[in-house]
Amino acid sequence: MNILYDERVDGVLPQVDRSALLQALNARLPELEVLHQKEELKPYECDGLSAYRTTPLLVVLPSHLDEVQGVLKLCHEMQVPVVARGAGTGLSGGALPLEKGVLLVMARFNNILHIDPAARTARVQPGVRNLAISQAAAPFGLYYAPDPSSQIACSIGGNVAENAGGVHCLKYGLTVHNLIKVDILTVEGEHLSLGSDALDSPGFDLLALFTGSEGMLGVITEVTVKLLPKPQTAKVLLAAFDSVEKAGRAVGDIIGAGIIPGGLEMMDNLAIRAAEDFIHAGYPVDAEAILLCELDGVEADVHDDCDRVRQVLEKAGATEVRQARDEAERVRFWAGRKNAFPAVGRLSPDYYCMDGTIPRRELPGVLQAIAGLSAEYGLRVANVFHAGDGNMHPLILFDANQPGELDRAEALGGKILELCVKVGGSITGEHGVGREKINQMCAQFNSDELTLFHAVKAAFDPGGLLNPGKNIPTLHRCAEFGALHVHMGQLPFPELERF
Amino acid sequence: MNILYDERVDGVLPQVDRSALLQALNARLPELEVLHQKEELKPYECDGLSAYRTTPLLVVLPSHLDEVQGVLKLCHEMQVPVVARGAGTGLSGGALPLEKGVLLVMARFNNILHIDPAARTARVQPGVRNLAISQAAAPFGLYYAPDPSSQIACSIGGNVAENAGGVHCLKYGLTVHNLIKVDILTVEGEHLSLGSDALDSPGFDLLALFTGSEGMLGVITEVTVKLLPKPQTAKVLLAAFDSVEKAGRAVGDIIGAGIIPGGLEMMDNLAIRAAEDFIHAGYPVDAEAILLCELDGVEADVHDDCDRVRQVLEKAGATEVRQARDEAERVRFWAGRKNAFPAVGRLSPDYYCMDGTIPRRELPGVLQAIAGLSAEYGLRVANVFHAGDGNMHPLILFDANQPGELDRAEALGGKILELCVKVGGSITGEHGVGREKINQMCAQFNSDELTLFHAVKAAFDPGGLLNPGKNIPTLHRCAEFGALHVHMGQLPFPELERF
Repeated sequence: MNILYDERVDGVLPQVDRSALLQALNARLPELEVLHQKEELKPYECDGLSAYRTTPLLVVLPSHLDEVQGVLKLCHEMQVPVVARGAGTGLSGGALPLEKGVLLVMARFNNILHIDPAARTARVQPGVRNLAISQAAAPFGLYYAPDPSSQIACSIGGNVAENAGGVHCLKYGLTVHNLIKVDILTVEGEHLSLGSDALDSPGFDLLALFTGSEGMLGVITEVTVKLLPKPQTAKVLLAAFDSVEKAGRAVGDIIGAGIIPGGLEMMDNLAIRAAEDFIHAGYPVDAEAILLCELDGVEADVHDDCDRVRQVLEKAGATEVRQARDEAERVRFWAGRKNAFPAVGRLSPDYYCMDGTIPRRELPGVLQAIAGLSAEYGLRVANVFHAGDGNMHPLILFDANQPGELDRAEALGGKILELCVKVGGSITGEHGVGREKINQMCAQFNSDELTLFHAVKAAFDPGGLLNPGKNIPTLHRCAEFGALHVHMGQLPFPELERF
Repeated sequence: MNILYDERVDGVLPQVDRSALLQALNARLPELEVLHQKEELKPYECDGLSAYRTTPLLVVLPSHLDEVQGVLKLCHEMQVPVVARGAGTGLSGGALPLEKGVLLVMARFNNILHIDPAARTARVQPGVRNLAISQAAAPFGLYYAPDPSSQIACSIGGNVAENAGGVHCLKYGLTVHNLIKVDILTVEGEHLSLGSDALDSPGFDLLALFTGSEGMLGVITEVTVKLLPKPQTAKVLLAAFDSVEKAGRAVGDIIGAGIIPGGLEMMDNLAIRAAEDFIHAGYPVDAEAILLCELDGVEADVHDDCDRVRQVLEKAGATEVRQARDEAERVRFWAGRKNAFPAVGRLSPDYYCMDGTIPRRELPGVLQAIAGLSAEYGLRVANVFHAGDGNMHPLILFDANQPGELDRAEALGGKILELCVKVGGSITGEHGVGREKINQMCAQFNSDELTLFHAVKAAFDPGGLLNPGKNIPTLHRCAEFGALHVHMGQLPFPELERF
């Protein structure tokens, strides 16, 4: 039984005749590769959030757009839900399959169609990997700015669906700020272009609406992204602090001084030690927190900014400020940060990676509160995050084999997200809502707001066939779990939803 | 009779009992200022597009948010359309009243509520003038970047409704890129917050959807904008060319060289002469075109960029490149550009200001085509525009007292917009669709796309009471005028719609 899509609260899905669907697919789209054997389906049970798994009804692997269109038309006729998937690196279960639904894998659409250096745009298929765009643009001195940690593997279609961020989005924006056009197929298989090749497009901004809509509004068939000139130079400063609050305040001070770093990242002592053990980045292991601040641009500008940032950091109480002496050291400083998750993973049998966003000014207070919660729940929390954006990734360490630890980890995670909402932040920064945070959406939004989301969804997909059960909870789900939230004073992580 | 809202094609509006509405407003909201005498209504007949005029049913001037809410609730109960209006400086008739609708003037909500220099945000009421935000932020070394030419008068609520641009939006983005939160009242008078104080907000991006929706989705009650640090310095270069095509190509060359100017503006000979006569900016009156290129940032950076831009301009065939020697000359260079519209206005009894956007690479070809059309229609066209964005403002000169000239001007304008769409651009850059371009939307979008717009509109305002007849044409209108467009090979400007 599919316990992840709960018909009690997520709505009853249509009954599907699997063999009739398979037959119809084979008859209508004879070239289409369809997986239907149990062992073939197994690798598609989950995306990057591997704790949640469901076996899809069928997996289709189209190679041509008319096949995608054919699948959508047929599924629409037969009222079969469709979950689209790119590289499957998402961390919130946005591409988690449905037992009653087709998994539409877009990975084979991996061609870069056109790089236009004068317009500074790249037109690519949705399965193109994020990093491959920058590689293709490199001969023109250009690159694609948003850089999620998974950029070597994640695909641009998934980036659009999740509005992906990355280390550099403080300065260069999220995916939504780096798009000019997205071509989609609607649930009925009709082609639409959202946005345009020009600066702005009249009518409602459906491109921005679509970005981050997590596969609920249409299937992406082509993406035109903005490219940026590669900065002439980049320097990184490492500052050590004897308290996380001071480091948190320094973040606000840097931004308040009018400097916009290319990246501004923070790690606490647990994360520093873990990273240093793993990568030997040269981090000061006695520091309670470090900040990594990258400045990029033209040589003279970066030089000036480095001086200014150093002054701000020293005034904010940094015990040490070091500038990477050369490119090798700069890369090493970043390698420690980029490998912080696996490094922390070595400290503990399991960890739970959170993703919440808060207004920057709340950083010191929220960090203090997380330390308190960590002590209260008896679980270690390592903090690694995009400090400049207020996008936190607390990693809760636990051992699933110890009775009760997973429950405590999830309860602690819920408390942290609740805290984010309370200070004016949000339950996700860049990983999306997907399946993972569907209940927390009930804490983030009231029923008027959710009703509006449902009405917008219905404008694109009145039958609710695209990726049902993700991103936007039903009112019924919120009545069920929102009530729990209110009564028990904590966000719900009901047992039945866990793998 | 109201000839601007055409019930044949725009949908039948409910019958309104004016005196019952007036009585109900007075009874329920005794403090609310309501204008209902003919002479009181007169000043509200039009916005900045003064060629289109309609007398509103009633004008309300609320001073408190509960009055706005009360008006919306009552109008919803009585099924009366509502048109919200800020400063009324819009150039596409977005705030044009309805004979059967209430005009809701938000001008009295003009308080700056909070400037947060650490978060670099300003929370303001919708009637606050664009420039007033920068003035209030100045003591903190901050400013609000989008700067429409009307910034001294236009209000931020209107900027959000129209997704306003300006000289600096090439580098700093349109209004949508400079917002973090907008509070609205729905058509039913319910309060919603779109966006959040944090970097990103989960669920669909309703903030971006709302921005530029031209009053069709809700009434803005509060806006939280991003503030930017004031650049340390700004320099401007003036380059002269012996052909507009060369100047157009130079624009692409500058962007292609990896430089993002603070502003990159172009004027052709007619505009240059007009501006020089009026402002004495020191422009070379024999040039076929000039470019004004502003570079801003830290001193050293700007210095380097000025050298690079000069090289690019010379290589692109500039006959002269001059850097403003001092701040006074810089201001004078810009004064010529900023007063180009009134300057051109002195050349001719009437002019028609167009607003279209094209991909940058199409600039040389489109400029050539406009010159051809100008000759064909026997009307002079002055070109003044945000070249870096591909946002063109051709000014068509005509004399409405000469029989047929207005028709020719409108037909020529239609041809120019058609050309924009043809090369992959759009029928508006920053002035919006409003009432003016409602028919051209039929050329820009097909019926699937329009149906989707209507479904999105219905998600917010199922009864269609908010600003009906603007921005998104009915399918009936497109069937009527889109057909005309197809049959006659030109965009329709039906006689009945003109004042």
